Formats: sequence, C-alpha cells, structure tokens
Amino acid sequence: MSIEKKLFRAGPYADFFSQGVRVGDSLYLAGQVGMTEAGEIPSDLPSQVEAAYKNIAAVLFEFGATMDNIVDETFFVTDMKDCMRQVPAIFETREAAYGKKPEVAQTLIGVSALVDPGLKVEIKIIAKF
Amino acid sequence: MSIEKKLFRAGPYADFFSQGVRVGDSLYLAGQVGMTEAGEIPSDLPSQVEAAYKNIAAVLFEFGATMDNIVDETFFVTDMKDCMRQVPAIFETREAAYGKKPEVAQTLIGVSALVDPGLKVEIKIIAKF
Amino acid sequence: MSIEKKLFRAGPYADFFSQGVRVGDSLYLAGQVGMTEAGEIPSDLPSQVEAAYKNIAAVLFEFGATMDNIVDETFFVTDMKDCMRQVPAIFETREAAYGKKPEVAQTLIGVSALVDPGLKVEIKIIAKF
Repeated sequence: MSIEKKLFRAGPYADFFSQGVRVGDSLYLAGQVGMTEAGEIPSDLPSQVEAAYKNIAAVLFEFGATMDNIVDETFFVTDMKDCMRQVPAIFETREAAYGKKPEVAQTLIGVSALVDPGLKVEIKIIAKF
Repeated sequence: MSIEKKLFRAGPYADFFSQGVRVGDSLYLAGQVGMTEAGEIPSDLPSQVEAAYKNIAAVLFEFGATMDNIVDETFFVTDMKDCMRQVPAIFETREAAYGKKPEVAQTLIGVSALVDPGLKVEIKIIAKF
Repeated sequence: MSIEKKLFRAGPYADFFSQGVRVGDSLYLAGQVGMTEAGEIPSDLPSQVEAAYKNIAAVLFEFGATMDNIVDETFFVTDMKDCMRQVPAIFETREAAYGKKPEVAQTLIGVSALVDPGLKVEIKIIAKF
C-alpha cells in the first residue's frame, strides 16, 4: 500500500510531474517560474516575481489553500546583482502577493540557469495545512 | 530529550551525514548524485539520472519505502542546455524509475558545480509515509 | 481561517521574512549565511561555516530547539573547489557545532552567487520536533 497523495497536474509537463503534491498536512509545489499564464516572460525581475506568485496562488487554490498556508520559500535567481538592486520593488511585489508582511522563511540563491533562458526567477514553495 | 530519528549511514561520508533521516511521517534524503554503486560516473546525463534514481531507491529501501513514497524532487544540473536537449530521454528514464507517471512535485535548477567535476546531476528527495 | 504559525522575526529584513517558521512538528529556517552576529564576514570558508551554524543555533533557540532537532541541511557554496579542498576543516567545524556526528541528511550544491559578494556559504535547515 502506498501513501495517499492529492495531485494537481496541469500544463505541457502534466505527465511528468505534478504542480503540487499534498500528503497529510504538507503541500509541496513544483518550482514556479516568472512566466504568465499566457506563456509570456516579462523582461524585468519584479514583474517575473509577480507572475511567479500568481502561478503559486493558482496552484494553492487547487488545494483549497491560500498564500497564508506558505511556510517556506526558496528564490532561485539568475542575476543576483540585478536582484539586490531591485530589492525594494521585489519586496513590494511580494508583500502585495501575500497581502501582508510575509510570514514565511526565505532563502535566496543565485543560480547559473533556469529552464528557459529568459527566466530570471523560480520560486519553490512549501505550504502547510 | 531529543526527537527520535531513524538514520541510514553508508559510504565514505557515513560519519558526517546520513543518507536518509526519518522523523515521524517525513523522510529526508541526502542529495543523490549520478554515480553508480561501483563509483563510476557515466558520461551522459540520462545515464547519470538513472544512476541517481538507483541510489535513491536503495536509500528508500532501507527505510521500508519505495519510489511511491516520494512527494518532492529537486534536480540540480550543471548544464541546463544539455538537460533541455535531452528532456525526452530523461523523462523516459524517470518514468521507468518510478514505474509510472511520477506523482511528485519537481523543481529544476542549473547550478555552477556539484561535488565531483564529472557529475551532471544531483537529486534531492523528500518522501512521506 | 489560517494555520497557526510561530514566527521569529529579526534583523534588517524582519518585515519581509521570518528567520524561522514553525507549524506543527515542522520548523523551517531562513537560509543562514556565513556572517557573524556583529555583521562581519570571515574571509575563509570554515569560519563562515562556523558563523552560519551559530546563526542557526540562535534561531533554533528561539523555538526551544537545539541542533539535535535538525533533520536536513542544504549547503550552497560559491566555490566548490575551495570547499572540497577544505572538507576536513569544514567537517570538523560541523561536528563541533553539532557536538557529535551530525544526524542529518545533507545536500551540497555549488551556486553562482549569494546575497553578498563576500559570502561563501549559505545553509538551509529543516528541523523537527
């Protein structure tokens, strides 16, 4: 017998991984990138962060969760210097996405590449119920 | 008093970290790399992915778990362009390792280095019971 | 209704993320970097690892936890070659921080940048109660 998983599959890779997996009180999201639902990639980092949070909120919604359920987020960014220059705008975008001061742990890492060369950010989320 | 941990120590670094740590319903695996049990590093990425999953399955086995227990995986790859070119072969290898369409969340990140210069992939796994 | 989170906010980014978030039996720490409490960044990696563990222990303390509660750690290092050369010193530092052979899963990744150019290491911790 296996554990009971709740899945939310969507998008072109729906056969290969789930956008979210819930087991018990834990919900793990697939890394969400700075691409809009229409498949467009904004050219600036704050807009990509905004798009990533919209994707995150959409996955949470499928599990009956909201941004309040997030406990941990890891930011992977491709250009740390650009990120640090835009910290105020990014934090403003984040606070708007959460609707309050985010009650989450955060880790920020500079990486060498994401799945598309135009992407500047990917956010990995853990949520709890 | 401390929490009760179940450990599985193995390999040359057995004194320094555990290949897996279970507490309650959660099992965290050490990052598993694309190296065979014999210590060989295949030259192509799909073969390294296959080797990494064999290592993962071996650690899970020590805890009485299987690939079905995995809920979250993070792929760290050293060459994203090579990875994206080989996506079909990698997904085929993955599906064979899982024995079905993987019921997991996934994050894919390009990194600048892994512990050995020949390694192209490391996979970090979280499993649940 | 939302889940019940316990937070520990501190430092210049206290409005933007929590140094730790506990929900139920799980505690997620924000990535802790190799900077001393006084804001100094040691020039060598083992000293930065020591500083990061002091920061980790301080956050754990706020939640009534100790290093024994750690189950999973991810090391992000900016210079893997330097890291591998200094593995003995780093493992010695780690064992001193834990006070015994660490009972944790570990993942070690080379990254392109951390939040400050002087930083050589960031450690992401998951703890359990």
